[in-house]
Amino acid sequence: MLHLYIGNKNYSSWSMRPWVLLRQAGIAFDELRVRFDSFEAGSEFKRTVGAVSPTGKVPVLVDGGLVVWDTLAIAEYLAETHPDKQLWPADPRARARARSICAEMHSGFTALRSHCPMNIEANLADTGALIWRDQAAVRADVQRLVDMWSELLQEHGGPMLFGEFTIADAYFAPVCMRLHSYALPLPPHITDYVQRVRALPGVRAWIDEALAEQDFRAFEEPYRLGR
Amino acid sequence: MLHLYIGNKNYSSWSMRPWVLLRQAGIAFDELRVRFDSFEAGSEFKRTVGAVSPTGKVPVLVDGGLVVWDTLAIAEYLAETHPDKQLWPADPRARARARSICAEMHSGFTALRSHCPMNIEANLADTGALIWRDQAAVRADVQRLVDMWSELLQEHGGPMLFGEFTIADAYFAPVCMRLHSYALPLPPHITDYVQRVRALPGVRAWIDEALAEQDFRAFEEPYRLGR
Repeated sequence: MLHLYIGNKNYSSWSMRPWVLLRQAGIAFDELRVRFDSFEAGSEFKRTVGAVSPTGKVPVLVDGGLVVWDTLAIAEYLAETHPDKQLWPADPRARARARSICAEMHSGFTALRSHCPMNIEANLADTGALIWRDQAAVRADVQRLVDMWSELLQEHGGPMLFGEFTIADAYFAPVCMRLHSYALPLPPHITDYVQRVRALPGVRAWIDEALAEQDFRAFEEPYRLGR
Repeated sequence: MLHLYIGNKNYSSWSMRPWVLLRQAGIAFDELRVRFDSFEAGSEFKRTVGAVSPTGKVPVLVDGGLVVWDTLAIAEYLAETHPDKQLWPADPRARARARSICAEMHSGFTALRSHCPMNIEANLADTGALIWRDQAAVRADVQRLVDMWSELLQEHGGPMLFGEFTIADAYFAPVCMRLHSYALPLPPHITDYVQRVRALPGVRAWIDEALAEQDFRAFEEPYRLGR
């Protein structure tokens, strides 16, 4: 049985990716949720996750004695061990393209990620309007998403980025959460894609559990004093 | 024929990874070096690379009409299209491990990367001593590298991280450049690994061409006024 260590569902955008991927693909796994108490060296979180993975970060996938960390490596491992699930696009060129955008996400979109941390339960539309007005780098990140998604949706005909659901949609699911929570302005066909991602059963399940968490963590909340 | 767009060899750590991988694996490719003039929107660099790749960043691999960007996606593409070269470790568990550390590098080690930008031709030992004294996060990044490499070298017996050369060594080659240029303190067996990486023909070729460049770019030089 696969074991997936994750953080708080409301906040942990990296945890969300493999969880949604597993759930949406129908691959059985045990979830081990490690609550964010703090990211200091002696915290419960760091001690628990550090006992499993050398980086002390979530997500971590454990398969028997094998520990796989970092979202992209987990995605590749799942794709390799579940070839029947076609987690990457079947066409080699589309697959290379999907890997390109996932790797781009993995190390990029830093303005969007730092200014708009994932916070599924919060309505941050007013904050989003200020960010949109003042942060050119956030606007540039969103424009890049709009261009990327528009091209792929046009080329593959939707409903997901490469036609059917793949790792790429799981990779951008947390971005869809941010775009929604901060109500950033999007063209209608991109809002439609965001809504389709939010309606995927695997994503819906994550959102529902995030809403049920009700666990306010001040260090993940630059814009709220409380729930 | 494969075409690889890269930046300045002295500075572009991301470009170095696929270049070394291709060269070391003996895969033929055309190099297209795009000099770093500036990273502003209207720069020659951004216009040239932006005409090929949507991110406007190097490296970019072009294979016929297919454009693959971002180092990790390029590595996966090369591994898939050249199975005979065994670019990833052949053992599935070792491969998952190799992908984990490459993905960790892809999004991590930010203190080492920001305080010690790659600068192959420079001797920055004095700067390195100050950084080492003052930057706990750099010391933590180096400690993580020492732990990671020690474990892998022990487990696989060297000379490279997974025995023979793989994508993982190409991925950490620019880190070896930094450790050397800034003369950061390392245990002897790790210094030995750094030297072995530097002595790989593919790495040696990159270093030689970096030294021949002699193209001082002030915006890549936080620690020098000139060559």
